[in-house]
Amino acid sequence: MSRRPVFIISDRSGLTAETLSHTLLSQFPDTGFQQRALPFIDSHEKAREAVETINRAGEAAGCRPLVFTTFVDEAFNETLDTAEAEIFDLLSPFIARMERVLGQPSSHKPGQSHSISDFKEYTNRIDAVNFAMHCDDGLHPADYSKASLILIGASRSGKTPTCLYLALHFGFYAANYPLTEEDFSGSRLPEPLMPFRDKAFGLTIDPLRLHQIRTERRPGSEYASLGRCREDVAQAETMFRRNNIPFCDSTNFSVEELGSTIKHQMGLVSSLY
Amino acid sequence: MSRRPVFIISDRSGLTAETLSHTLLSQFPDTGFQQRALPFIDSHEKAREAVETINRAGEAAGCRPLVFTTFVDEAFNETLDTAEAEIFDLLSPFIARMERVLGQPSSHKPGQSHSISDFKEYTNRIDAVNFAMHCDDGLHPADYSKASLILIGASRSGKTPTCLYLALHFGFYAANYPLTEEDFSGSRLPEPLMPFRDKAFGLTIDPLRLHQIRTERRPGSEYASLGRCREDVAQAETMFRRNNIPFCDSTNFSVEELGSTIKHQMGLVSSLY
Repeated sequence: MSRRPVFIISDRSGLTAETLSHTLLSQFPDTGFQQRALPFIDSHEKAREAVETINRAGEAAGCRPLVFTTFVDEAFNETLDTAEAEIFDLLSPFIARMERVLGQPSSHKPGQSHSISDFKEYTNRIDAVNFAMHCDDGLHPADYSKASLILIGASRSGKTPTCLYLALHFGFYAANYPLTEEDFSGSRLPEPLMPFRDKAFGLTIDPLRLHQIRTERRPGSEYASLGRCREDVAQAETMFRRNNIPFCDSTNFSVEELGSTIKHQMGLVSSLY
Repeated sequence: MSRRPVFIISDRSGLTAETLSHTLLSQFPDTGFQQRALPFIDSHEKAREAVETINRAGEAAGCRPLVFTTFVDEAFNETLDTAEAEIFDLLSPFIARMERVLGQPSSHKPGQSHSISDFKEYTNRIDAVNFAMHCDDGLHPADYSKASLILIGASRSGKTPTCLYLALHFGFYAANYPLTEEDFSGSRLPEPLMPFRDKAFGLTIDPLRLHQIRTERRPGSEYASLGRCREDVAQAETMFRRNNIPFCDSTNFSVEELGSTIKHQMGLVSSLY
Protein backbone atom coordinates (compact mmCIF):
# COMPACT_ATOMS: atom_id res chain seq x y z
CA MET A 1 0.00 0.00 0.00
CA SER A 2 1.13 3.58 -0.64
CA ARG A 3 2.17 5.62 2.33
CA ARG A 4 -0.73 7.61 3.74
CA PRO A 5 -0.60 11.29 2.69
CA VAL A 6 -0.34 13.80 5.53
CA PHE A 7 -0.86 17.53 5.03
CA ILE A 8 0.22 20.22 7.50
CA ILE A 9 -1.70 23.39 6.72
CA SER A 10 -1.66 26.85 8.24
CA ASP A 11 -2.37 30.47 7.41
CA ARG A 12 1.16 31.37 8.52
CA SER A 13 4.44 29.46 8.82
CA GLY A 14 2.75 26.26 10.00
CA LEU A 15 5.39 25.72 12.66
CA THR A 16 2.90 24.94 15.41
CA ALA A 17 1.04 22.49 13.16
CA GLU A 18 4.36 20.94 12.19
CA THR A 19 5.52 20.46 15.78
CA LEU A 20 2.29 18.95 17.09
CA SER A 21 1.63 16.75 14.06
CA HIS A 22 5.22 15.49 14.19
CA THR A 23 4.64 14.45 17.81
CA LEU A 24 1.32 12.78 16.95
CA LEU A 25 2.70 10.91 13.93
CA SER A 26 5.74 9.73 15.91
CA GLN A 27 3.30 7.75 18.06
CA PHE A 28 2.60 5.55 15.02
CA PRO A 29 6.14 4.51 14.06
CA ASP A 30 5.08 1.51 12.02
CA THR A 31 2.79 3.44 9.68
CA GLY A 32 4.29 4.95 6.55
CA PHE A 33 3.38 8.60 6.12
CA GLN A 34 4.12 10.93 3.24
CA GLN A 35 4.20 14.42 4.75
CA ARG A 36 3.71 17.68 2.94
CA ALA A 37 3.51 21.19 4.39
CA LEU A 38 1.23 23.82 2.84
CA PRO A 39 2.07 27.00 4.77
CA PHE A 40 0.72 30.52 4.18
CA ILE A 41 -2.77 29.36 3.08
CA ASP A 42 -4.27 32.78 3.74
CA SER A 43 -7.01 33.18 1.11
CA HIS A 44 -10.11 31.23 0.15
CA GLU A 45 -8.59 30.60 -3.27
CA LYS A 46 -5.49 29.02 -1.72
CA ALA A 47 -7.70 27.00 0.66
CA ARG A 48 -9.69 25.64 -2.31
CA GLU A 49 -6.44 24.77 -4.13
CA ALA A 50 -5.29 22.96 -0.98
CA VAL A 51 -8.52 20.92 -0.99
CA GLU A 52 -7.84 19.86 -4.59
CA THR A 53 -4.25 18.92 -3.76
CA ILE A 54 -5.42 16.85 -0.79
CA ASN A 55 -8.11 15.07 -2.81
CA ARG A 56 -5.68 14.22 -5.61
CA ALA A 57 -3.16 12.82 -3.10
CA GLY A 58 -5.87 10.69 -1.47
CA GLU A 59 -6.97 9.26 -4.81
CA ALA A 60 -3.38 8.50 -5.83
CA ALA A 61 -2.62 6.77 -2.53
CA GLY A 62 -5.95 4.96 -2.27
CA CYS A 63 -6.57 6.08 1.32
CA ARG A 64 -7.88 9.13 3.14
CA PRO A 65 -5.18 11.70 3.89
CA LEU A 66 -4.65 13.06 7.40
CA VAL A 67 -4.79 16.85 7.48
CA PHE A 68 -3.51 18.87 10.44
CA THR A 69 -4.58 22.52 10.48
CA THR A 70 -3.84 25.56 12.62
CA PHE A 71 -6.02 28.22 11.06
CA VAL A 72 -6.81 31.14 13.28
CA ASP A 73 -9.39 32.36 10.76
CA GLU A 74 -12.07 29.70 11.18
CA ALA A 75 -13.57 30.39 7.75
CA PHE A 76 -10.63 28.53 6.20
CA ASN A 77 -11.45 25.47 8.31
CA GLU A 78 -14.88 25.38 6.69
CA THR A 79 -13.31 25.26 3.23
CA LEU A 80 -10.87 22.55 4.30
CA ASP A 81 -13.74 20.51 5.73
CA THR A 82 -14.92 19.87 2.16
CA ALA A 83 -11.80 17.77 1.47
CA GLU A 84 -12.04 13.97 1.32
CA ALA A 85 -9.77 13.63 4.32
CA GLU A 86 -9.54 13.31 8.09
CA ILE A 87 -9.14 16.90 9.30
CA PHE A 88 -7.50 17.48 12.68
CA ASP A 89 -8.15 21.08 13.72
CA LEU A 90 -5.37 21.57 16.27
CA LEU A 91 -6.40 24.98 17.59
CA SER A 92 -10.15 25.65 17.58
CA PRO A 93 -11.23 23.19 20.30
CA PHE A 94 -8.68 24.60 22.74
CA ILE A 95 -9.32 28.24 21.77
CA ALA A 96 -13.06 27.78 22.32
CA ARG A 97 -12.48 26.36 25.79
CA MET A 98 -9.96 29.07 26.68
CA GLU A 99 -12.48 31.73 25.67
CA ARG A 100 -14.97 30.21 28.10
CA VAL A 101 -12.45 29.85 30.93
CA LEU A 102 -10.93 33.31 30.48
CA GLY A 103 -14.28 34.94 29.76
CA GLN A 104 -13.00 36.82 26.74
CA PRO A 105 -12.83 36.36 22.98
CA SER A 106 -9.57 35.39 21.29
CA SER A 107 -7.93 37.87 18.91
CA HIS A 108 -8.27 35.56 15.87
CA LYS A 109 -5.11 37.10 14.45
CA PRO A 110 -2.88 34.55 12.74
CA GLY A 111 0.85 34.20 13.22
CA GLN A 112 1.07 35.76 16.69
CA SER A 113 3.22 32.95 17.92
CA HIS A 114 6.25 32.59 15.65
CA SER A 115 6.11 36.11 14.23
CA ILE A 116 7.93 39.24 15.38
CA SER A 117 4.99 40.15 17.59
CA ASP A 118 7.27 41.69 20.19
CA PHE A 119 10.01 43.55 18.39
CA LYS A 120 12.30 44.01 21.41
CA GLU A 121 12.02 40.34 22.31
CA TYR A 122 12.81 39.29 18.74
CA THR A 123 15.83 41.62 18.54
CA ASN A 124 17.09 40.12 21.81
CA ARG A 125 16.82 36.65 20.32
CA ILE A 126 18.86 37.64 17.26
CA ASP A 127 21.42 39.36 19.51
CA ALA A 128 21.61 36.12 21.49
CA VAL A 129 22.46 34.20 18.29
CA ASN A 130 25.18 36.72 17.49
CA PHE A 131 26.52 36.36 21.03
CA ALA A 132 26.59 32.56 20.73
CA MET A 133 28.63 32.87 17.51
CA HIS A 134 30.89 35.51 19.08
CA CYS A 135 31.57 33.36 22.17
CA ASP A 136 31.73 29.99 20.43
CA ASP A 137 34.59 27.59 21.20
CA GLY A 138 36.24 29.67 23.91
CA LEU A 139 36.32 32.90 21.91
CA HIS A 140 36.07 36.29 23.68
CA PRO A 141 35.95 35.19 27.33
CA ALA A 142 36.14 38.90 28.19
CA ASP A 143 32.43 39.02 27.31
CA TYR A 144 31.38 36.20 29.69
CA SER A 145 29.86 38.79 32.03
CA LYS A 146 27.05 39.19 29.47
CA ALA A 147 26.43 35.43 29.24
CA SER A 148 23.29 33.74 30.58
CA LEU A 149 25.28 30.52 30.78
CA ILE A 150 28.59 29.00 29.70
CA LEU A 151 28.61 25.42 28.44
CA ILE A 152 31.83 23.57 29.10
CA GLY A 153 33.02 20.16 27.99
CA ALA A 154 35.52 18.20 25.94
CA SER A 155 35.93 19.08 22.26
CA ARG A 156 32.98 17.75 20.19
CA SER A 157 30.73 16.95 23.15
CA GLY A 158 27.86 18.94 21.59
CA LYS A 159 28.39 22.42 23.01
CA THR A 160 28.04 24.54 19.85
CA PRO A 161 24.70 23.22 18.52
CA THR A 162 23.26 23.33 22.05
CA CYS A 163 24.34 26.96 22.51
CA LEU A 164 22.86 27.96 19.15
CA TYR A 165 19.61 26.24 20.05
CA LEU A 166 19.46 27.95 23.47
CA ALA A 167 20.02 31.31 21.75
CA LEU A 168 17.61 30.83 18.84
CA HIS A 169 14.84 29.18 20.80
CA PHE A 170 14.96 30.87 24.20
CA GLY A 171 17.02 34.02 23.57
CA PHE A 172 19.68 32.95 26.09
CA TYR A 173 23.19 34.38 25.79
CA ALA A 174 24.99 31.04 25.63
CA ALA A 175 28.79 30.94 25.48
CA ASN A 176 30.83 27.77 25.28
CA TYR A 177 34.32 26.86 26.41
CA PRO A 178 36.15 23.71 25.28
CA LEU A 179 38.15 21.83 27.90
CA THR A 180 41.55 20.85 26.54
CA GLU A 181 44.56 19.02 27.92
CA GLU A 182 46.06 22.15 29.46
CA ASP A 183 42.83 22.76 31.41
CA PHE A 184 43.13 19.28 32.91
CA SER A 185 46.53 19.81 34.55
CA GLY A 186 44.81 20.58 37.86
CA SER A 187 41.27 19.96 39.01
CA ARG A 188 40.58 23.69 39.20
CA LEU A 189 38.31 25.43 36.75
CA PRO A 190 40.13 27.11 33.86
CA GLU A 191 41.08 30.71 34.62
CA PRO A 192 38.49 32.44 32.34
CA LEU A 193 35.67 30.47 33.99
CA MET A 194 36.68 31.17 37.60
CA PRO A 195 34.56 34.31 38.09
CA PHE A 196 31.56 32.69 36.38
CA ARG A 197 31.26 29.33 38.15
CA ASP A 198 27.51 29.91 38.69
CA LYS A 199 26.95 30.26 34.96
CA ALA A 200 28.83 27.09 34.05
CA PHE A 201 27.08 23.92 32.90
CA GLY A 202 28.92 20.81 31.78
CA LEU A 203 28.30 18.48 28.87
CA THR A 204 29.63 14.97 28.90
CA ILE A 205 29.37 12.18 26.33
CA ASP A 206 29.98 8.47 25.96
CA PRO A 207 33.72 8.14 25.04
CA LEU A 208 32.88 5.64 22.28
CA ARG A 209 30.46 8.10 20.67
CA LEU A 210 33.03 10.90 21.04
CA HIS A 211 35.59 8.67 19.33
CA GLN A 212 33.18 8.19 16.39
CA ILE A 213 32.50 11.93 16.07
CA ARG A 214 36.16 12.91 16.28
CA THR A 215 37.12 10.18 13.83
CA GLU A 216 34.83 11.71 11.21
CA ARG A 217 36.69 15.00 11.55
CA ARG A 218 40.26 13.77 11.97
CA PRO A 219 40.47 10.06 11.06
CA GLY A 220 43.34 8.19 12.68
CA SER A 221 44.52 11.14 14.77
CA GLU A 222 45.63 10.92 18.38
CA TYR A 223 42.84 13.45 19.09
CA ALA A 224 40.25 10.96 17.79
CA SER A 225 41.71 7.85 19.46
CA LEU A 226 39.48 6.00 21.90
CA GLY A 227 42.10 6.29 24.65
CA ARG A 228 42.29 10.04 24.31
CA CYS A 229 38.48 10.34 24.23
CA ARG A 230 38.19 8.24 27.41
CA GLU A 231 40.81 10.39 29.11
CA ASP A 232 39.17 13.70 28.06
CA VAL A 233 35.73 12.62 29.22
CA ALA A 234 37.03 11.29 32.56
CA GLN A 235 39.00 14.50 33.21
CA ALA A 236 36.02 16.70 32.30
CA GLU A 237 33.67 14.78 34.60
CA THR A 238 36.21 14.98 37.44
CA MET A 239 36.39 18.74 36.96
CA PHE A 240 32.58 19.06 36.99
CA ARG A 241 32.29 17.04 40.20
CA ARG A 242 35.11 18.73 42.10
CA ASN A 243 33.75 22.17 41.28
CA ASN A 244 30.06 21.35 41.74
CA ILE A 245 29.26 22.16 38.13
CA PRO A 246 25.93 20.59 37.10
CA PHE A 247 26.27 18.52 33.94
CA CYS A 248 24.41 16.16 31.69
CA ASP A 249 25.16 13.55 29.09
CA SER A 250 24.61 14.54 25.46
CA THR A 251 25.01 11.02 24.04
CA ASN A 252 21.31 10.19 23.77
CA PHE A 253 19.86 13.69 24.11
CA SER A 254 18.89 15.94 21.23
CA VAL A 255 19.66 19.67 21.36
CA GLU A 256 15.99 20.26 22.21
CA GLU A 257 16.18 17.88 25.18
CA LEU A 258 19.54 19.26 26.30
CA GLY A 259 18.16 22.80 26.00
CA SER A 260 15.10 22.03 28.14
CA THR A 261 17.21 20.17 30.69
CA ILE A 262 19.77 22.97 31.02
CA LYS A 263 17.07 25.67 31.24
CA HIS A 264 15.26 23.66 33.90
CA GLN A 265 18.32 22.68 35.97
CA MET A 266 19.82 26.18 35.92
CA GLY A 267 16.48 27.83 36.64
CA LEU A 268 16.90 30.12 33.62
CA VAL A 269 13.85 32.17 32.71
CA SER A 270 13.11 33.02 29.10
CA SER A 271 10.84 35.89 28.16
CA LEU A 272 9.77 33.71 25.24
CA TYR A 273 8.65 30.47 26.91
CA MET B 1 -5.32 41.03 39.77
CA SER B 2 -2.31 38.73 39.65
CA ARG B 3 -1.38 37.28 36.32
CA ARG B 4 -2.99 33.91 35.73
CA PRO B 5 -0.54 31.02 36.29
CA VAL B 6 0.10 28.80 33.30
CA PHE B 7 1.92 25.46 33.57
CA ILE B 8 3.42 23.58 30.64
CA ILE B 9 3.94 19.98 31.66
CA SER B 10 5.36 16.97 29.89
CA ASP B 11 7.06 13.66 30.53
CA ARG B 12 9.93 14.75 28.25
CA SER B 13 11.30 18.12 27.08
CA GLY B 14 7.88 19.71 26.86
CA LEU B 15 8.75 21.33 23.55
CA THR B 16 5.50 20.33 21.86
CA ALA B 17 3.46 21.57 24.82
CA GLU B 18 5.48 24.79 24.81
CA THR B 19 4.95 25.45 21.11
CA LEU B 20 1.21 24.80 21.08
CA SER B 21 0.48 26.58 24.36
CA HIS B 22 2.51 29.59 23.19
CA THR B 23 0.31 29.76 20.08
CA LEU B 24 -2.87 29.41 22.14
CA LEU B 25 -1.85 32.03 24.71
CA SER B 26 -0.80 34.47 21.97
CA GLN B 27 -4.46 34.55 20.94
CA PHE B 28 -5.22 36.31 24.24
CA PRO B 29 -2.73 39.20 24.09
CA ASP B 30 -4.53 41.34 26.68
CA THR B 31 -4.48 38.70 29.42
CA GLY B 32 -1.49 38.59 31.74
CA PHE B 33 -0.05 35.09 32.06
CA GLN B 34 2.72 33.83 34.29
CA GLN B 35 4.21 30.84 32.50
CA ARG B 36 6.20 28.05 34.04
CA ALA B 37 7.50 24.89 32.40
CA LEU B 38 7.69 21.61 34.32
CA PRO B 39 9.46 19.24 31.93
CA PHE B 40 10.53 15.63 32.56
CA ILE B 41 7.57 14.79 34.85
CA ASP B 42 8.06 11.06 34.37
CA SER B 43 7.02 9.47 37.67
CA HIS B 44 3.88 9.49 39.77
CA GLU B 45 5.78 11.20 42.57
CA LYS B 46 6.82 14.05 40.26
CA ALA B 47 3.25 14.28 38.95
CA ARG B 48 1.93 14.62 42.51
CA GLU B 49 4.54 17.30 43.27
CA ALA B 50 3.42 19.13 40.12
CA VAL B 51 -0.19 19.06 41.37
CA GLU B 52 0.93 20.67 44.64
CA THR B 53 2.92 23.34 42.80
CA ILE B 54 -0.09 24.11 40.59
CA ASN B 55 -2.47 24.32 43.55
CA ARG B 56 -0.15 26.64 45.48
CA ALA B 57 0.20 28.94 42.44
CA GLY B 58 -3.57 29.05 41.99
CA GLU B 59 -4.11 29.96 45.63
CA ALA B 60 -1.45 32.67 45.50
CA ALA B 61 -2.87 34.19 42.32
CA GLY B 62 -6.50 33.84 43.35
CA CYS B 63 -7.55 32.20 40.08
CA ARG B 64 -7.49 28.78 38.47
CA PRO B 65 -4.23 28.04 36.64
CA LEU B 66 -4.24 26.86 33.04
CA VAL B 67 -2.29 23.62 32.61
CA PHE B 68 -1.15 22.35 29.20
CA THR B 69 0.02 18.75 29.15
CA THR B 70 1.57 16.42 26.59
CA PHE B 71 1.83 13.16 28.49
CA VAL B 72 2.10 10.10 26.36
CA ASP B 73 1.59 7.91 29.44
CA GLU B 74 -2.06 8.60 30.18
CA ALA B 75 -1.73 7.56 33.82
CA PHE B 76 0.04 10.88 34.51
CA ASN B 77 -2.96 12.75 33.10
CA GLU B 78 -5.12 11.10 35.75
CA THR B 79 -2.87 12.40 38.52
CA LEU B 80 -2.82 15.90 36.99
CA ASP B 81 -6.61 15.86 36.78
CA THR B 82 -6.72 16.10 40.57
CA ALA B 83 -5.24 19.64 40.45
CA GLU B 84 -7.47 22.66 41.05
CA ALA B 85 -6.85 23.89 37.52
CA GLU B 86 -8.08 23.89 33.94
CA ILE B 87 -6.20 21.02 32.30
CA PHE B 88 -5.72 21.10 28.54
CA ASP B 89 -4.59 17.65 27.41
CA LEU B 90 -2.99 18.52 24.06
CA LEU B 91 -2.35 14.98 22.82
CA SER B 92 -4.88 12.38 23.98
CA PRO B 93 -7.94 13.55 22.01
CA PHE B 94 -5.97 13.54 18.74
CA ILE B 95 -4.17 10.26 19.50
CA ALA B 96 -7.49 8.53 20.25
CA ARG B 97 -8.96 9.69 16.93
CA MET B 98 -5.80 8.74 15.01
CA GLU B 99 -5.96 5.23 16.53
CA ARG B 100 -9.51 4.89 15.18
CA VAL B 101 -8.67 6.30 11.73
CA LEU B 102 -5.46 4.30 11.32
CA GLY B 103 -6.92 1.17 12.90
CA GLN B 104 -3.93 0.60 15.15
CA PRO B 105 -2.83 1.47 18.68
CA SER B 106 -0.29 4.23 19.30
CA SER B 107 3.09 3.31 20.75
CA HIS B 108 2.56 5.33 23.95
CA LYS B 109 6.30 5.92 24.10
CA PRO B 110 7.18 9.45 25.24
CA GLY B 111 9.70 11.73 23.61
CA GLN B 112 9.63 10.21 20.14
CA SER B 113 9.36 13.62 18.56
CA HIS B 114 12.21 15.79 19.77
CA SER B 115 14.51 12.97 20.78
CA ILE B 116 17.26 11.25 18.84
CA SER B 117 14.82 8.63 17.62
CA ASP B 118 16.59 8.36 14.27
CA PHE B 119 20.30 8.53 14.91
CA LYS B 120 21.35 9.11 11.30
CA GLU B 121 18.83 11.92 10.91
CA TYR B 122 20.00 13.58 14.11
CA THR B 123 23.66 13.33 13.10
CA ASN B 124 22.75 14.94 9.78
CA ARG B 125 21.12 17.82 11.61
CA ILE B 126 24.22 18.42 13.74
CA ASP B 127 26.41 18.17 10.63
CA ALA B 128 24.13 20.78 9.03
CA VAL B 129 24.75 23.16 11.95
CA ASN B 130 28.50 22.64 11.58
CA PHE B 131 28.20 23.32 7.85
CA ALA B 132 26.25 26.55 8.47
CA MET B 133 29.02 27.73 10.83
CA HIS B 134 31.72 26.64 8.35
CA CYS B 135 30.06 28.48 5.44
CA ASP B 136 28.87 31.55 7.37
CA ASP B 137 29.48 35.01 5.96
CA GLY B 138 31.04 33.94 2.67
CA LEU B 139 33.53 31.52 4.20
CA HIS B 140 34.63 28.39 2.28
CA PRO B 141 32.77 28.87 -1.02
CA ALA B 142 34.68 25.83 -2.26
CA ASP B 143 32.19 23.76 -0.25
CA TYR B 144 29.06 25.26 -1.86
CA SER B 145 28.56 22.06 -3.82
CA LYS B 146 27.45 20.44 -0.55
CA ALA B 147 24.96 23.22 0.25
CA SER B 148 21.18 22.73 0.17
CA LEU B 149 20.87 26.48 -0.35
CA ILE B 150 22.93 29.68 -0.24
CA LEU B 151 21.37 32.77 1.31
CA ILE B 152 22.61 36.02 -0.19
CA GLY B 153 22.00 39.62 0.79
CA ALA B 154 23.50 42.82 2.13
CA SER B 155 25.48 42.69 5.38
CA ARG B 156 23.12 42.39 8.42
CA SER B 157 20.02 41.50 6.45
CA GLY B 158 19.41 38.43 8.63
CA LYS B 159 21.30 35.69 6.79
CA THR B 160 23.20 34.07 9.66
CA PRO B 161 20.33 33.45 12.12
CA THR B 162 18.15 32.21 9.25
CA CYS B 163 20.84 29.75 8.11
CA LEU B 164 21.34 28.45 11.65
CA TYR B 165 17.59 27.98 12.03
CA LEU B 166 17.33 26.14 8.68
CA ALA B 167 20.17 23.85 9.79
CA LEU B 168 18.98 23.19 13.34
CA HIS B 169 15.30 22.82 12.56
CA PHE B 170 15.25 21.16 9.14
CA GLY B 171 18.77 19.78 8.76
CA PHE B 172 19.42 21.86 5.63
CA TYR B 173 23.01 22.64 4.65
CA ALA B 174 22.59 26.41 4.56
CA ALA B 175 25.51 28.60 3.49
CA ASN B 176 25.39 32.39 3.33
CA TYR B 177 27.21 34.93 1.23
CA PRO B 178 27.25 38.68 2.00
CA LEU B 179 26.89 41.06 -0.93
CA THR B 180 29.42 43.89 -0.64
CA GLU B 181 30.28 46.92 -2.75
CA GLU B 182 32.65 44.99 -4.96
CA ASP B 183 29.89 42.50 -5.82
CA PHE B 184 27.71 45.40 -6.98
CA SER B 185 30.07 46.67 -9.68
CA GLY B 186 28.13 44.73 -12.33
CA SER B 187 24.70 43.19 -12.18
CA ARG B 188 26.17 39.71 -12.53
CA LEU B 189 26.17 37.27 -9.67
CA PRO B 190 29.42 37.18 -7.69
CA GLU B 191 31.89 34.65 -9.07
CA PRO B 192 31.59 32.04 -6.26
CA LEU B 193 27.80 31.92 -6.70
CA MET B 194 27.80 31.53 -10.50
CA PRO B 195 27.75 27.72 -10.59
CA PHE B 196 25.10 27.59 -7.86
CA ARG B 197 22.44 30.01 -9.10
CA ASP B 198 19.70 27.42 -8.46
CA LYS B 199 20.67 27.20 -4.80
CA ALA B 200 20.65 30.96 -4.23
CA PHE B 201 17.92 32.71 -2.26
CA GLY B 202 17.98 36.43 -1.50
CA LEU B 203 17.15 38.30 1.67
CA THR B 204 16.23 41.94 1.56
CA ILE B 205 15.32 44.36 4.35
CA ASP B 206 13.86 47.83 4.87
CA PRO B 207 16.85 50.24 4.57
CA LEU B 208 15.73 52.13 7.68
CA ARG B 209 15.73 48.93 9.72
CA LEU B 210 19.12 47.97 8.27
CA HIS B 211 20.40 51.42 9.29
CA GLN B 212 19.24 50.77 12.89
CA ILE B 213 20.88 47.34 13.02
CA ARG B 214 24.18 48.52 11.54
CA THR B 215 24.20 51.59 13.81
CA GLU B 216 24.11 49.32 16.87
CA ARG B 217 27.24 47.59 15.62
CA ARG B 218 29.19 50.54 14.20
CA PRO B 219 27.59 53.80 15.33
CA GLY B 220 28.26 56.80 13.07
CA SER B 221 30.13 54.77 10.44
CA GLU B 222 29.70 55.20 6.70
CA TYR B 223 28.73 51.48 6.70
CA ALA B 224 25.77 52.26 8.99
CA SER B 225 24.64 55.46 7.23
CA LEU B 226 21.12 55.50 5.86
CA GLY B 227 22.40 56.45 2.39
CA ARG B 228 24.73 53.46 2.30
CA CYS B 229 21.99 51.13 3.56
CA ARG B 230 19.58 52.38 0.87
CA GLU B 231 22.23 51.86 -1.78
CA ASP B 232 23.15 48.34 -0.60
CA VAL B 233 19.51 47.21 -0.47
CA ALA B 234 18.71 48.69 -3.89
CA GLN B 235 21.78 47.06 -5.44
CA ALA B 236 21.01 43.70 -3.87
CA GLU B 237 17.40 43.75 -5.08
CA THR B 238 18.54 44.68 -8.59
CA MET B 239 20.92 41.72 -8.57
CA PHE B 240 18.15 39.34 -7.39
CA ARG B 241 15.76 40.53 -10.12
CA ARG B 242 18.27 40.49 -12.99
CA ASN B 243 19.39 36.99 -12.10
CA ASN B 244 15.96 35.57 -11.29
CA ILE B 245 16.96 34.84 -7.71
CA PRO B 246 13.86 34.40 -5.51
CA PHE B 247 13.98 36.63 -2.45
CA CYS B 248 11.97 37.78 0.52
CA ASP B 249 11.95 40.63 2.98
CA SER B 250 13.25 39.88 6.48
CA THR B 251 12.06 43.17 8.03
CA ASN B 252 8.85 41.84 9.57
CA PHE B 253 9.54 38.12 9.36
CA SER B 254 10.97 36.00 12.16
CA VAL B 255 13.59 33.32 11.42
CA GLU B 256 10.80 30.74 11.75
CA GLU B 257 8.69 32.50 9.13
CA LEU B 258 11.69 33.09 6.85
CA GLY B 259 12.66 29.44 7.23
CA SER B 260 9.20 28.16 6.27
CA THR B 261 8.99 30.61 3.37
CA ILE B 262 12.39 29.66 1.97
CA LYS B 263 11.74 25.93 2.36
CA HIS B 264 8.37 26.32 0.63
CA GLN B 265 9.52 28.61 -2.19
CA MET B 266 12.62 26.57 -2.99
CA GLY B 267 10.75 23.28 -2.74
CA LEU B 268 13.28 21.91 -0.27
CA VAL B 269 12.37 18.62 1.35
CA SER B 270 13.43 17.89 4.90
CA SER B 271 13.59 14.36 6.23
CA LEU B 272 12.49 15.84 9.55
CA TYR B 273 9.29 17.71 8.67
